[in-house]
Amino acid sequence: MNAVTSARAGAESSTESSAETGADIGVEVRVMAQAAQAAARGLVASTTDARNQALLGAAALLDDRRRELREANALDMQRARKNALDSALLDRLELSEARIDAMLEGLRQVAALPDPVGAIRDMSPRPSGIRVGKMRVPLGVIGIIYESRPNVTADAASLCIKSGNAAILRGGSEALHSNAVIASAMADGLAAAGLDAAAVQLVQTRDRAAVGALLALEGLIDVVIPRGGKSLVERISREAQVPVIKHLDGICHVYIDAGADADMALAIAVNAKTHRYGTCNTMETLLVHAEEAPALLPLLAAAFRDAGVELRVCERSRSLLPDAILATEADWGTEYLAPILSLRMVDSIDEAMAHIERYGSGHTEAIVTADYQRSQRFLREVDSASVIVNASTRFADGFEYGLGAEIGISTDKLHARGPVGLEGLTSEKYVVLGDGQIRS
Amino acid sequence: MNAVTSARAGAESSTESSAETGADIGVEVRVMAQAAQAAARGLVASTTDARNQALLGAAALLDDRRRELREANALDMQRARKNALDSALLDRLELSEARIDAMLEGLRQVAALPDPVGAIRDMSPRPSGIRVGKMRVPLGVIGIIYESRPNVTADAASLCIKSGNAAILRGGSEALHSNAVIASAMADGLAAAGLDAAAVQLVQTRDRAAVGALLALEGLIDVVIPRGGKSLVERISREAQVPVIKHLDGICHVYIDAGADADMALAIAVNAKTHRYGTCNTMETLLVHAEEAPALLPLLAAAFRDAGVELRVCERSRSLLPDAILATEADWGTEYLAPILSLRMVDSIDEAMAHIERYGSGHTEAIVTADYQRSQRFLREVDSASVIVNASTRFADGFEYGLGAEIGISTDKLHARGPVGLEGLTSEKYVVLGDGQIRS
Repeated sequence: MNAVTSARAGAESSTESSAETGADIGVEVRVMAQAAQAAARGLVASTTDARNQALLGAAALLDDRRRELREANALDMQRARKNALDSALLDRLELSEARIDAMLEGLRQVAALPDPVGAIRDMSPRPSGIRVGKMRVPLGVIGIIYESRPNVTADAASLCIKSGNAAILRGGSEALHSNAVIASAMADGLAAAGLDAAAVQLVQTRDRAAVGALLALEGLIDVVIPRGGKSLVERISREAQVPVIKHLDGICHVYIDAGADADMALAIAVNAKTHRYGTCNTMETLLVHAEEAPALLPLLAAAFRDAGVELRVCERSRSLLPDAILATEADWGTEYLAPILSLRMVDSIDEAMAHIERYGSGHTEAIVTADYQRSQRFLREVDSASVIVNASTRFADGFEYGLGAEIGISTDKLHARGPVGLEGLTSEKYVVLGDGQIRS
Repeated sequence: MNAVTSARAGAESSTESSAETGADIGVEVRVMAQAAQAAARGLVASTTDARNQALLGAAALLDDRRRELREANALDMQRARKNALDSALLDRLELSEARIDAMLEGLRQVAALPDPVGAIRDMSPRPSGIRVGKMRVPLGVIGIIYESRPNVTADAASLCIKSGNAAILRGGSEALHSNAVIASAMADGLAAAGLDAAAVQLVQTRDRAAVGALLALEGLIDVVIPRGGKSLVERISREAQVPVIKHLDGICHVYIDAGADADMALAIAVNAKTHRYGTCNTMETLLVHAEEAPALLPLLAAAFRDAGVELRVCERSRSLLPDAILATEADWGTEYLAPILSLRMVDSIDEAMAHIERYGSGHTEAIVTADYQRSQRFLREVDSASVIVNASTRFADGFEYGLGAEIGISTDKLHARGPVGLEGLTSEKYVVLGDGQIRS
């Protein structure tokens, strides 16, 4: 019996009980992490084929267990409604047939991706006679802490397995029953492929102390990836003694340069704001060069009015858009995630880049320009995870970038930056091939 | 007047005074970090040539200022002797003419290395029509905290400048006068090349609170690299709110496989232990397959006896080496950094790898083998920063690996792993080239 099913058997009694103490939870997650570490050792030596079979097997098992999954999800939904959770959360929690289909398709797509593990690059001879290169290897044990979206259980676990890592999953407690069915299918898929089922384990307690216990497992958990709102990510970054790959704000900018094509500028600005409001790569501030402002601002204002987007503008812009609201200092540093846009007129690319540096979050910035030199300056000098010339900020996404899938978007500078796919879940070690060399 | 020289002018009064409070130091290092951040912005836009000129200029200035440097070093040595510091520290502190020559040569060598900044890889078209690639970029502001070896001031600063980063240096207070002359030459070299002198700044107070203040500068300092003994590194890792690239233990293993060439095994084992005792890539534990032990152990024991190395062996090995000391459990987890070696007999590569996983520090391990399959298993499955087949562990070094220079060796898994050269001081961001694409 693997750790997931054993934990699962006792789920209702242990999770609903308030008798379980913090110390017990600490022991429980430590035992899980030790099992995960052992499973990770097995995965690093496993074949690509075995890991792919585990993913395809899990998809097939979940397909067979649709009824069980729908019932578990109905239990979660019932409880969530009883607790009067808001409609956005209920929507994310619900597993419709279409969402289950998408989840299974996601597992098959990850199985079809190229295996990053074991690739060796730059193997080069050295004067001593040794040959030195770098081999891509799994990180080991990855903790994923996420909110109540059960499909993340399958997404995150599949990316970890494919990249040779063991996953410890801690989803929002509202999705506990749904997550248990999914994690169990993943574990059973591993076992059926001859791999250690403990490579996917779900923390099954509703007790929030479990998160703190996970974050303290230095030396057992190699990295924690929080997926969720800013408060979750901030809390985890603050508390974690293990490394964290994190995504904080997405205060993204589009800068419309002097001489930019007006149609292109209008199309990109409208798309970057209105394609979706709640996503982290949505534009929150538009910077427009003063030379283009007189012609462009009225067109932009009309387009955003039609789309129902509220504009908050700088003093100078208001001379051209007298009806617009005046932006406050706070607006420039706000990720609205809503149909609101701040807009500022600037006199140069330098002023635009200085604004981005001061108020941006290092996520994604775009320039619309026809000028070669300024395009290159923007690419080189803007210090963000994604820097874009003449395209919408909405392209900053693992699928659009061709990563196949993403575990999240990192606004860190070290290790993974921007959309994090399989490569971000791996590291590189040096490999040295000799035939008896010693140092003299 | 740049920050270094202004700090320097006040060095004696501020550093020798105990009136400076922790709060003052906090303000002082924050001001330095803000200046460093501004300087880093300039560096990211600078040409390779300007950065190289800064390094060559600094070398020429230091050459001109040899007398000043020798006098400053004499002051440091005098103070260190008065404080009865031990001979090892005095040796590291002293700047002989030969050491100054080596330091200047190091600056010229870093200038000659290829520039990592701005390189773009894997630029590929996507179905949407955008092209996506990754550009190598500086990390920004790097804090280097090190002990009383003045040559590290030049080494670390040159690697930071070359990779487009600003450096805040905090060397051991015993080397304060020497470090000030070196940092000042680096800053003057920057200024002469038209770059911002604040890209190299030295924290000039002897107050230890300065380190704590640096480690708290989240958002201003992008990474801190401690260079020194384990207690320094542990303290910094524990306290830092900013990311740390660190090196902890170097408990390195050599495993002599069944069927290994006896001469090669002997040569590698002796070199890995005796080439230098105090280095982190020195072998601390030797694992010998039971099939080879009867022939090999007496030869190894004789060679190590000749070299003055004390053996601490497992029970089984002692049946072949009755004079050897019995190893305790603590021996397997000890980095001796001394002419002591622990030795264990194992029955298989699996037992060897299990021992390495349990007691190793993830630094460097080598196998001596004639077997293809086991060489590949060792390369793939051993989870260390450097994994070596048929060569001495002593090769795990930035120069031997062809990095040109190293800022240190990382035993972390995320970001840089193993010897850290210029690439480890950079990150990659996504760059996207479009011609008006929007998401549909």
